[in-house]
Order: sequence, then C-alpha cells, then structure tokens
Amino acid sequence: MTTNRLLLGPGPSPVDQRVLRALSEPLLGHLDPEFLRIMDEIQELLRYVFETRNRLTIPISGTGSAGMEASLVNLLEPGDAAVVGIAGVFGERMVDIVERSGAKPVAVRADWGRPIDLSLIEEAVANSHPAVLAIVHAETSTGVLQELEGLADLAHRHGALLVVDAVTSLGGHPVGVDAMGIDVCYSGTQKCLGCPPGLSPITFSDRAMERIHARKQKVQSWYLDVSMVEKYWGADRTYHHTAPVSMNYALREALRMIREEGLEPRWKRHERNHRGFVAGIEAMGLEMFVSRKNRLWSLNSVRVPEGIDEARVRVRLLERHGIEIGGGLGPLKGKIWRVGLMGSGSTRENVLLVLEALRESLEFEGKVCPSGVSAAERVYFP
Amino acid sequence: MTTNRLLLGPGPSPVDQRVLRALSEPLLGHLDPEFLRIMDEIQELLRYVFETRNRLTIPISGTGSAGMEASLVNLLEPGDAAVVGIAGVFGERMVDIVERSGAKPVAVRADWGRPIDLSLIEEAVANSHPAVLAIVHAETSTGVLQELEGLADLAHRHGALLVVDAVTSLGGHPVGVDAMGIDVCYSGTQKCLGCPPGLSPITFSDRAMERIHARKQKVQSWYLDVSMVEKYWGADRTYHHTAPVSMNYALREALRMIREEGLEPRWKRHERNHRGFVAGIEAMGLEMFVSRKNRLWSLNSVRVPEGIDEARVRVRLLERHGIEIGGGLGPLKGKIWRVGLMGSGSTRENVLLVLEALRESLEFEGKVCPSGVSAAERVYFP
Repeated sequence: MTTNRLLLGPGPSPVDQRVLRALSEPLLGHLDPEFLRIMDEIQELLRYVFETRNRLTIPISGTGSAGMEASLVNLLEPGDAAVVGIAGVFGERMVDIVERSGAKPVAVRADWGRPIDLSLIEEAVANSHPAVLAIVHAETSTGVLQELEGLADLAHRHGALLVVDAVTSLGGHPVGVDAMGIDVCYSGTQKCLGCPPGLSPITFSDRAMERIHARKQKVQSWYLDVSMVEKYWGADRTYHHTAPVSMNYALREALRMIREEGLEPRWKRHERNHRGFVAGIEAMGLEMFVSRKNRLWSLNSVRVPEGIDEARVRVRLLERHGIEIGGGLGPLKGKIWRVGLMGSGSTRENVLLVLEALRESLEFEGKVCPSGVSAAERVYFP
Repeated sequence: MTTNRLLLGPGPSPVDQRVLRALSEPLLGHLDPEFLRIMDEIQELLRYVFETRNRLTIPISGTGSAGMEASLVNLLEPGDAAVVGIAGVFGERMVDIVERSGAKPVAVRADWGRPIDLSLIEEAVANSHPAVLAIVHAETSTGVLQELEGLADLAHRHGALLVVDAVTSLGGHPVGVDAMGIDVCYSGTQKCLGCPPGLSPITFSDRAMERIHARKQKVQSWYLDVSMVEKYWGADRTYHHTAPVSMNYALREALRMIREEGLEPRWKRHERNHRGFVAGIEAMGLEMFVSRKNRLWSLNSVRVPEGIDEARVRVRLLERHGIEIGGGLGPLKGKIWRVGLMGSGSTRENVLLVLEALRESLEFEGKVCPSGVSAAERVYFP
C-alpha cells in the first residue's frame, strides 16, 4: 500500500476515488465494441472540455510531453520555420522538439516569470513566415498564464498554424479552442483534469488536418503519426497500436466528473482557491513570484524567503505533513516553491492545510510567520 | 461497470485482481522518494524477467509500439542501414519506423506463417554492413516463434547491434537477453506479463548505450530519447517527463507475480496450455496455421475451415460466450483466428472454455465438430 500524500505540486494532482475505481475495472479488448463506445464518449467529453467541434479530439497514448511532440512533428516538415514563445522549461522543450524535427525554431523570449510580449511575437512571425506559432498557455515551471487573444489572427494572417500547450490550464482555466482559433491544443491528464498521468488529450482543427494530409513526407514518429491514429479513433477503427485501456477508463470518469461539475463552476473553483491561497501567503508576509495579472490559478509560485533552504522546507512538508509541493526548475531552482491547486486538489481544505503546514515548516527553519488561514478564509466567507 | 470478457485474443490479456488493485492505489508524485523506490524495484524485476544485467532496463511510457520506435530511433542515424526480418505486421512496422528515421531498411522476408531463414539474414547482413539487425521474436500477427540463436554473433561479427521484439514472448517464452547477446529488447505489458496496456519494458546493452552516447545527432524523438530518460531512471533522478505513476504500480505488481511464480514454471505453464489447446483443436478436426516446431505458446493461430465466415464466429464467441479472440490481419484476414493464451490468461480452464465455445459457435454456423475437450485433458492428465 502506497503512502497517502496530498499532491499539491506541479502534478500529478490528487485523483478522486471514482477515477481510481474506474482504473481498476476489468479490461476490454481495444477493438471490443464496448470499448469503441467508450472511445466515442471520451472524444465527445474531450470536445466539451476543449470547447471545440474539432473531429480529431483524442487522447494520445503518452504523457503531456508526447502530446507536445505529436503536435509539432505532425505539423512541421524539414526546413519549416516555427516561432516558439519561451519563458520557462516547456517553451525550451518545444524548441528542442522543433529542432529534432528538422524545422527551424525562431525563439521569442521573456524572463521566466513574465508573459511573452505580443509585439515581439508579431515581429517574429512577420519576419520568419513560420509554418507554426507555438506557445505555452500555462507555464508550469513559473506559474505564468500567457494570454491567447490575438495569437490565432496573427498566425493565420501569416499562413501559420497556432499550437497551444494547455497542459496545466485545461479544466482549470478557460482555454476555448474554437473561440480562440487554436489549431492544435494538447494537455496532460494529471493536472486540472484530475486523472493519473499517462495520456495526453489533443485536438486538431480542420486547418491542421488539411496541413497534415498534404504533407510531403511522413511524420518522423510512427507512434505519434495522427494520420494513422485518426483511423483507429474514427469510423475506420483500423488497428494502429493497442490503446491503454485502463487509462482510458480513468480519463472517461475524470471527464464525466468535469461535465457534472460544469466547466464554468470548475474554473471559478480554481480561481477562488487560488485567491484564498494568495491571500494567505501574503498575510504570512510571503510574496508571490508572478505579478497579479499574469498568475495561473492552477500553479502558484511563491518566492522562497531570504535565508531559507527551500528543499528542507519541502522535505518537512512531505515527511511531517504528507504534502507534496514542487521546487523551482533551472534558473528558479532554490528561488520558488510551486504549489499546485489543480483538479480535485483545488479545495478550500487543501488551501488551509498547505498554508498552515508551510507556516509550521518555516517556523521549524527559524522563520516565524503569522498564520495565513484567516486571510484565506475571508476569500471564502467574505 | 464494464462487461466481463475473457480476453483470449492477441492482447490485452486478462489482468489479475492483484494487478488491478495496484492500479487504483493512491498516487505518489513522480519524484517522491517512495515512488523512486518503486522505480528501482521495477528495474530490478525487469532485469529478472529479461534475464539481463543491463543497467538501463526500464518501462517506456507508451505501448509496445513506442518501445519498437524507441529501440530503432535511438540506435539509428540518417544513412545507416538496418536489416529487418519481415514475416508479419510487426516486421513491416519496423521497416516503416526505420524509413522515418532516415535510415535505409534492408528487408529479409519470409511468407507470413513461417520463420525467416537464417542464411538469408546472414546474406543481407554481410552485404549491407548494417548498424542494426532487427527481428521479431514472437510475430503476433501469425503466431510464429523466430529462433534467436546465432543472430547476435552474426550481428556483432559485422558491427551491427541486435534488436529483438519480444512483445508477445517476454514472460511466456524464454527470451534470455544476456545469454542470447541481444542489444536492445522490448516488450509490451499487455501480453505475457499480465498487466494492462500502456507501458513498454525495454533493455539496452552496454554496447547499445555506447552507440547512443556516441551519436552524431540528437535522437529524432524527444519523448523517446533514452539518453535523457536514463537520467530520470538512474541515479540523477532528473525530471524528463511525468512517469505514468498508476501504470507503474500495476507493472510492479505484475512483475512481482512473475517472480513469485518463477520464470521457468511460467514458461512451462504457457507451453502446457498451448499443447492442450492444440490437442483440442486437432481433435476437433481443425488445423493450426503454423507448423509444429515454429509455434508460439502465447499466440495460437488456427486456420478458419472452408466455408466459414470467421468474423461471425468471433462475434458469437464474444456475444454468446464472452470470449474475445482475434482475426487475421493483412493477407491473413479471413483465414486465421488468433487465440492468445498469455499471462494469467494461460490456464487449463481457459483452454477448455475456448475449445468448447469455438465448437458451439462453429455448430451454430452449420459446421459440426467433435469436442476437443478430452483430447486437451489428456495433455493435462496424461
């Protein structure tokens, strides 16, 4: 039996019992008519969550990074340019994948912790005639939300397709694939969707599918070639690879829970718990890393106070309080904590628990803070 | 609640309750010390099952086809030659992946249903100076076991690495990675390992790792780049992608069950049930598709008798008897049934059940056969 942890890091997020029970249902074959109906239901539910009518809206059989790779390698051909926004680990990862595909990345950078300036993106797109404009909506390494308004128009005006990484936003923040004009959007199951890691929901616009069907050469990855995968998920039902049956059960159940809650109430829940957390953090005399208007609700980055060894605090949170939070990556190592309030982990109880546990752990390290609990409570019971 | 099916097709195979329960354990973070210990145990257990001391012996975060792609794209660079044995769907798939990697496939073919001739492989290797010799040990599309003796010597003599697809043999047939001199061997969890689909166990010899570390250019796939993945599974514990936590729980439990049973008794069980099945099939007046000495124990292909619509029989097996078996693929469509006796599905009870259900379903189609049950029983109680 594994130890019970409260998962308030950058993901995986806590998984509801309903979803865990679905995981352990007896297996159906991946071509069983009953499983094919489950696949149809998953596609329908994913369209609801992505807010899209795109036909090809499916889970890729890998984690969020497989979705990132699938989105880029299916659209890009050698020699293409791709403008990529970078302000954290996941933008960097996109550039690495673009390079491996033989395409030419054009990086548009912002400091880690800030969103990328639209005018810089505009300049890069106008100058490089890219096949793809790729950007991270919710940068898990920093806690920054990148606004998407205007990006699709910009991309389409220059003949590019817009790829959006919504790994840490889908199900917790509005993404609105059709309304935003996104061509390819992917996510991971283990963040705001409240499912274990292992699948990457992805959706392709008709424009993206036209591009894929008109490719001059085959997609470099056989496993992630959506022109083949779509035949299994579509009317043909042609065998491609064996679907991860149990993970698809779990995803269906997690998506059903989202539909029951409703997207809008779910976003509001993520927003409210984020506000409660921030109020508590500030009442404790701590500081958020990202400025107010660019903050993710799902991933809260907190500056580590001067003189505190952040790793020791995380060890105490885990060992004494059973709570997992994340540390900083790359240039932010040692400088921030990352507190995820995602999916079924985004609750008032968890906000209060993590605030109090953080206070106790800082006190143990010799830094006495006021409690953040009553400031947080004022958000819930104003 | 999903319908209970007896999965006797080409996979997924039936999954034991212990493994299903493990799937639904509460989640740990992918960098939690407790999860890192689970990863260590999985690597140790995989070494046992692969019969290897290879350091890099891990599950790839995708299905068996992801393992196939990982093995080829990590070893091959553009312009390399790769000799590939083809006698079924999975050999063809290897060629497709080799081409996508920019390498040059040299195909050595056999008729579907027969093993590939060693002398033809020898000729191809001697003529093409390949970087890789790749072969399918257990061809799931035909039910043929390809002998591995002599292949490693041949490959190594010519400076090539030996890649073996053991998707449908590992855990059901001896594979013996170190004894056979295999450089890269991969499998899938949903066949003889008795775990749901979603992971692909893979192992790399030191020779293979040297080749990978000396690559001139990056592996084309970021997700499957084992020079990065090994840092997460090794001492560094560097984050690469979020491990599919729940699937790893299930794999650990399935591997523990294999260690408890013992490899040798497990192979013997697969062999005995295969023999029981064949005895029954022949007593019914039906014919196996593959000649006696080349048959897989895990995947039994049976010729469809003249005048029988094989798909109707499969529908009746599924709907009336709750048993899934597979049909033929490609040139074998309509010509064979594929009956999997894999992992925890390989039991005397299942052999008797499927023989009797097949008899009833053929009778329903107007073909009256003798029962195969007593002939099968003579294998179990001679």
